[in-house]
Amino acid sequence: MGNLIVQKYGGSSVANPERIKNVAKRVVRYKKRGYNVVVVVSALGDTTDELIELASKVTDDPSEREMDMLISTGEQISCALLAMAIDKLKVPAISFTGAQVGIITDNSHTKARILNISAERIKEELKNGKVVVVAGFQGISVAKEITTLGRGGSDLTAVALAKALGAKICEIYTDVDGVYTADPRIVKDAKKLSRVSYDEMLELASLGAKVMQARSVEYGKRYDIPIHVRSSFSNVEGTIISKEVKSMERIDVSGLALQKDEAKVTICDVPDKPGIAAIIFKELAVNNIVIDMIVQNVSRTGTTDISFTVLKEDLAKTIKVAKKVAREVGAGEVIKDENIAKVSIVGIGMRSHSGIAARMFRALASKKINIEMISTSEIKISCVIEKRHAETALRTLHDEFGLKRVK
Amino acid sequence: MGNLIVQKYGGSSVANPERIKNVAKRVVRYKKRGYNVVVVVSALGDTTDELIELASKVTDDPSEREMDMLISTGEQISCALLAMAIDKLKVPAISFTGAQVGIITDNSHTKARILNISAERIKEELKNGKVVVVAGFQGISVAKEITTLGRGGSDLTAVALAKALGAKICEIYTDVDGVYTADPRIVKDAKKLSRVSYDEMLELASLGAKVMQARSVEYGKRYDIPIHVRSSFSNVEGTIISKEVKSMERIDVSGLALQKDEAKVTICDVPDKPGIAAIIFKELAVNNIVIDMIVQNVSRTGTTDISFTVLKEDLAKTIKVAKKVAREVGAGEVIKDENIAKVSIVGIGMRSHSGIAARMFRALASKKINIEMISTSEIKISCVIEKRHAETALRTLHDEFGLKRVK
Repeated sequence: MGNLIVQKYGGSSVANPERIKNVAKRVVRYKKRGYNVVVVVSALGDTTDELIELASKVTDDPSEREMDMLISTGEQISCALLAMAIDKLKVPAISFTGAQVGIITDNSHTKARILNISAERIKEELKNGKVVVVAGFQGISVAKEITTLGRGGSDLTAVALAKALGAKICEIYTDVDGVYTADPRIVKDAKKLSRVSYDEMLELASLGAKVMQARSVEYGKRYDIPIHVRSSFSNVEGTIISKEVKSMERIDVSGLALQKDEAKVTICDVPDKPGIAAIIFKELAVNNIVIDMIVQNVSRTGTTDISFTVLKEDLAKTIKVAKKVAREVGAGEVIKDENIAKVSIVGIGMRSHSGIAARMFRALASKKINIEMISTSEIKISCVIEKRHAETALRTLHDEFGLKRVK
Repeated sequence: MGNLIVQKYGGSSVANPERIKNVAKRVVRYKKRGYNVVVVVSALGDTTDELIELASKVTDDPSEREMDMLISTGEQISCALLAMAIDKLKVPAISFTGAQVGIITDNSHTKARILNISAERIKEELKNGKVVVVAGFQGISVAKEITTLGRGGSDLTAVALAKALGAKICEIYTDVDGVYTADPRIVKDAKKLSRVSYDEMLELASLGAKVMQARSVEYGKRYDIPIHVRSSFSNVEGTIISKEVKSMERIDVSGLALQKDEAKVTICDVPDKPGIAAIIFKELAVNNIVIDMIVQNVSRTGTTDISFTVLKEDLAKTIKVAKKVAREVGAGEVIKDENIAKVSIVGIGMRSHSGIAARMFRALASKKINIEMISTSEIKISCVIEKRHAETALRTLHDEFGLKRVK
């Protein structure tokens, strides 16, 4: 199918009839320019939350299978309405549920994985000259049950359809106009990135840049589907997430991220013997506690301190588990620190540029900001610092790596 | 499947989480008494109207295919919620859309006809000991599209499932507790009928008794499925609609109905020649005007007056069409009368009892009520009278035929 584009519109883009009509106009513009258009929609505004709220009034323990049955209606409503709105503009359109277009998933209700997409009915209707509107976030399991794909599921529907249909690009319309070098609410002169690599976006997403969920970016990376993140409220170009191109490598650092939702836990005086760390982190894992950074210093006295960070919402549970396991392995006390922030720099240029870490540490030191923990990946460096320094650190690093918008 | 019961709950019975929980309790009671229970639900309260309202804000001309996509979500929401509520009471339950249980319809969107029901998944889940909750009002067309069954569609789903599954009875839970001899708001001592025949119910339904849509009663009649109409807010027995039993024939008149939504139109001085009436009523039909009663008197002067009744909402259009056709056939003026009411008596006993009509006319005459038009069927007699006499006529006939509740 030549000249095919997949567009996804998030909940805020279709929050009410007026906005749905605006989306319809945009879709029709693309159609009239000669594109074949497949549109994926999320549920209207807060519909999903309202449905979850309804369920909570009926039971405190809904089965996941019934939750999927319930919340999948949100996207079915929005795709029917958008098809009507497009039709009203004299461009024929047809809506489909995930099941109808053959988005086959596994049986993991509320967080299903896409196994296969047949997309036969989509191809047929595109051939008929129609705009095809697909309910995002949902599929049908091999057991013929309605499933949903979990957080960011509609993005995933869009990227997966782009792959299945051989689309040139997948456009993700949202309420921000792209990916920025840093949170513009904190760093006033943050710059919109015109391009960013899948890997950088994955690091930024895992660091809490809420533009896109990591799994959709991973899917795009695996099948090399360029993703254009842009605003549904304007016509300006957004950010294209794609595989690395030469120009990207010339830049040291592409973006910065700041996280303040983690806390630090330290287990003191852990016996420095093989297998002890494994015992500790296995116990945390079986209690479903997700660990982010882990730091263990060299031992000098036969014991060591092990520090790690967890989401604040898991802190109480973490302390309980940590105290129990500390007793079991003969470690000392367990200390928590909620006044931390994590500041990170991300860039594929780090691979070829040396000295990036040193520049980061020096810049923080110049502002008398102490670094409590450090963790690095191939294209990312994260530092845990005192929370009160968070914004200063972000601005300082933004300047240091020359990310300022040129006025 | 032995001991199977199909229960249908209307929109007011599942209007909010509290009521859904009450329905769940009732279902569980039946299950614990040893019944296999299949439940059919309508959309929550006003959901369907709200969805139609949403569509109207997006387009003034929605395709029927997309309307079905949209409004079928209402029942999907309610069936998932009810399954959760039943599950919460420790009785396993599972919800299904019409498509999932194989309710196959024709392609007439928004008013589809059921062609076939496979119900395989229902049988399977009943064998697993589950309560099966089915979204009413919907099916899947032979073209694999979501369809809806039109007004009263959820009742039809219930009766059709009762047939497909070989259920003993189909219970229709609603906000009234049965079928009455007359509208209890007008006739204070109206009596609830414990039994009424399909044919009587069909006449009463067509006369505006809003308890059940005629098509569900017709379906029940065709396959001899007893239908128990009863209240979801109490445990009292309602009215059983079934085939005729001997006891019914002993009663002259089962029920009364009053309609005030019609108007009378008279075309004066119509040439009394063969084919003229056909021309008039064909012209009305092609303009989609539904005619109820027609009266034509014998001609004395070579011309005759033809009177008929139509719904008031069609009156303006009717007058326009009637005037045009009157000119064409050389008839005289067209007169309208909106101040009419139609009072009807219904009963299969009429077949074997003579003199029922005479008793009706005498009773009306005793109150000085003039009869303007008369129409009869095998088990019904309707009289058009002046609207101001409507309530008096209803009460008078209720007394005449001994329908009073025994105190």
